[in-house]
Amino acid sequence: MIAHGGRKSPCAHLYKGNMDRTLPLHNLQDTIIAAATGPAPGALSLLRLSGPRASAIAGTLLRSPGGGSFSIPEPRRAVLARVEADGKLIDRAVVVYFKAPASFTGDDVIEIACHGSPYITARAIAAAIAAGARTAEPGEFSMRAFFNGKMDLAQAEGLCDLILAKTEAAHRAALRITEGALSDRFQSIKDKILALLAETEARIDDADEEIPPINKAAVARTLESVKNNMAKLAATFELGRFMKEGVRTAIVGSPNCGKSSLLNALLGFDRAIVAPTPGTTRDTIEETADIKGFQVILTDTAGIREKALDPAEQEGIRRTRRAIDKSDLVLFVQDAQSGFSASDKEVWELVGKAGKPFLCVINKTDTGPAKTLPPGINGQDLVFVSCATSQGLPELKNKIAGKIPVDDMDENSAVLTSARHLNALLAAKTEVENAERIFGQDEPALEIAALHLNGALRELEGIVGVTAAEDVLREIFSRFCVGK
Amino acid sequence: MIAHGGRKSPCAHLYKGNMDRTLPLHNLQDTIIAAATGPAPGALSLLRLSGPRASAIAGTLLRSPGGGSFSIPEPRRAVLARVEADGKLIDRAVVVYFKAPASFTGDDVIEIACHGSPYITARAIAAAIAAGARTAEPGEFSMRAFFNGKMDLAQAEGLCDLILAKTEAAHRAALRITEGALSDRFQSIKDKILALLAETEARIDDADEEIPPINKAAVARTLESVKNNMAKLAATFELGRFMKEGVRTAIVGSPNCGKSSLLNALLGFDRAIVAPTPGTTRDTIEETADIKGFQVILTDTAGIREKALDPAEQEGIRRTRRAIDKSDLVLFVQDAQSGFSASDKEVWELVGKAGKPFLCVINKTDTGPAKTLPPGINGQDLVFVSCATSQGLPELKNKIAGKIPVDDMDENSAVLTSARHLNALLAAKTEVENAERIFGQDEPALEIAALHLNGALRELEGIVGVTAAEDVLREIFSRFCVGK
Repeated sequence: MIAHGGRKSPCAHLYKGNMDRTLPLHNLQDTIIAAATGPAPGALSLLRLSGPRASAIAGTLLRSPGGGSFSIPEPRRAVLARVEADGKLIDRAVVVYFKAPASFTGDDVIEIACHGSPYITARAIAAAIAAGARTAEPGEFSMRAFFNGKMDLAQAEGLCDLILAKTEAAHRAALRITEGALSDRFQSIKDKILALLAETEARIDDADEEIPPINKAAVARTLESVKNNMAKLAATFELGRFMKEGVRTAIVGSPNCGKSSLLNALLGFDRAIVAPTPGTTRDTIEETADIKGFQVILTDTAGIREKALDPAEQEGIRRTRRAIDKSDLVLFVQDAQSGFSASDKEVWELVGKAGKPFLCVINKTDTGPAKTLPPGINGQDLVFVSCATSQGLPELKNKIAGKIPVDDMDENSAVLTSARHLNALLAAKTEVENAERIFGQDEPALEIAALHLNGALRELEGIVGVTAAEDVLREIFSRFCVGK
Repeated sequence: MIAHGGRKSPCAHLYKGNMDRTLPLHNLQDTIIAAATGPAPGALSLLRLSGPRASAIAGTLLRSPGGGSFSIPEPRRAVLARVEADGKLIDRAVVVYFKAPASFTGDDVIEIACHGSPYITARAIAAAIAAGARTAEPGEFSMRAFFNGKMDLAQAEGLCDLILAKTEAAHRAALRITEGALSDRFQSIKDKILALLAETEARIDDADEEIPPINKAAVARTLESVKNNMAKLAATFELGRFMKEGVRTAIVGSPNCGKSSLLNALLGFDRAIVAPTPGTTRDTIEETADIKGFQVILTDTAGIREKALDPAEQEGIRRTRRAIDKSDLVLFVQDAQSGFSASDKEVWELVGKAGKPFLCVINKTDTGPAKTLPPGINGQDLVFVSCATSQGLPELKNKIAGKIPVDDMDENSAVLTSARHLNALLAAKTEVENAERIFGQDEPALEIAALHLNGALRELEGIVGVTAAEDVLREIFSRFCVGK
């Protein structure tokens, strides 16, 4: 229903023919139906019919409020209708017709807002199927929007992320992508490569050498700028990943230093079992907090005890190491009263060896001032908290957020959030570097340079879907829910 | 969104003033918001704003697709809009305006179809609240529809049932009520009583005896017909309860006769633990099957063993008795091979004593023909099945459906499904009988007859909401989900 604007997918005509032959499951000539809204019961359910026969099927499924035949209303006008199955009323609904191509999918679309009863939804879908529709595959509405040029592939992926976003950061990253900010960045890089390719191919075709030879200094400047743009965009991936998937944060420290209490304090409710006996937490516990709009995935590890001999605790140490290895950020927790003990030293060395961003959290400050601190600790990486009184927690949250790369971009900037996009971008960058090397030769082999530039373009076009392979498309759209 | 037609609630004006003073939670002057669709994530979520400030709040929450100020479109026209919070884009949505009184609630309504992300939904609702809306209470949209005369109370209750209906029968019963079939029946009874009351009151006011005395024979005929209509309607309650709430069916029999297997066979999947050792099922197990469009609530009881001494089995027998007592139908199961054993006799006598409708199911017919049958069993109440081969199961389902009163009414007929309606109807009938007794006297005390007729009217009006008490309204609407 949404994003009736969107950018033209230049590949629409290519795929249309192609898909009909090779992806029978996604035949674009079928008319598909699914509930677009979350699972019933609810007050309402929105059913969406999309495809060339949407109006005809609606004509069978629906009747006018008085029981006469249903005439498709003018586009975008909400009208009342009876929903019927086997000639019997099953509900009264509000119906809106979106005429192709001005619809979410680009097909003719009929939206039916019926009551959100599981029975009504099932009967209405069954009646539509009896009238010639079929149930939509996951992501099939969005896939049609892509094939019909309503949005490119990167935007479609952003839309999937948008629906699943649970935090402000995940939402912001996804929204920018659906709004096309990322596609614009790729487009401007592509434009520069295309212009250079055109110049290069003109020289290849110019057997009579009528045009002046290529300006190698200008080419070098262009390629340098393209590479820089690519590198800058690739560098946004760390932030993008944090925005979309969250920041994996390991909470480590000696037994009974208050790791579980810290986890609970950050979550704002009791999740881990908190007990005054050392070694209560044997398994790693994973919980997600929303800290300053970012999803922070907190892992509470088993306490590491000096010279632990108990097999369960040995396993605990292995888990702690694994948690540090898998984390983006480490919270090293130390008990204020016990000071920097031998057992703290063991954990501290593990943190140091891992070389990950970390914060040193001196816990239980309500019991008195910290006796000794870890050696050489930087004030910026140090926070004093009391989980009992909540003192210091806002500062800790600020410092956690401070360890996340800053998103100081405006609404129109974009960050990379997809490993697929990053990999394609890096592959394109390698091709640009290859072209750069060729152009740097005394007698540049222009045909080979053109091949590399073409290679870079292919990679970039794969991101927005122009050259994406069928299995890639299948994989991407299968991650969507049915109805999107 | 639905049922913009509906019948006028003659009480709307009465309640409007009343509610403002006494039900501050349900102030009709507030503009309320909630998601009308099932829980996100889904492709879309439909947010509904209803109240006098709906347009003004939408003007703050929404912007035009280009970012300019949002102008409320003509009613019922779907337009694109930006949803903003704190001046930032949070989604693009399709917006429809329903102008009062032509909306579901009768208020000005703005519907916003945004993407079905939990984050977006929460942010948009928060932004609407910041702009002056408040979150809707459960059932508050329907309550407004009732107060604004879009539907009567019985219809509103039907709507709640419609959304929760899981079977064809429950759906059919609820739909007839929302369509007003039940209200029409009450209305026609009321009309007759009203006419009689008018005649009676004319005689009371006629001090000079200018009009002829009341025709006692005609009055008797009218009251007889009213009573008959009331009795007929009250008699539909058994069917109505079966349609709405299902048929409670106890499966009883000796240990190891295959009760659990029968439960599973009727459900179509393995729910109870089926084991060849007698006495496996200690607790009663309750599962719901859809049999011929009716919800059949099957209770599998512990096997009753002859002279059971084991305390757990004694408890099992008590549970079986309780299950029979609470059931609408009993399935007495007997093992074909073992014949009618002493232990079967014990169960059979329990069934006979209860006097409930029953079927005798001879199970395990795949192992050979039944040796002996319960004494005096009627062929109509007898079914031979094999849960192992599924033989006889369709016949059993038919016979179960045959034990349910037949719904041979057309689409416009109604059945009573609510105990509240039944009780009010029976109270009204008592008042009619009281009036009948008065009219039967030699010198009818017309004032007293009029009091009874008025009493009957009050009861009937309570059903459709004209005289429903505040706490009744609260109780009814609190059963709705938020957003309806």
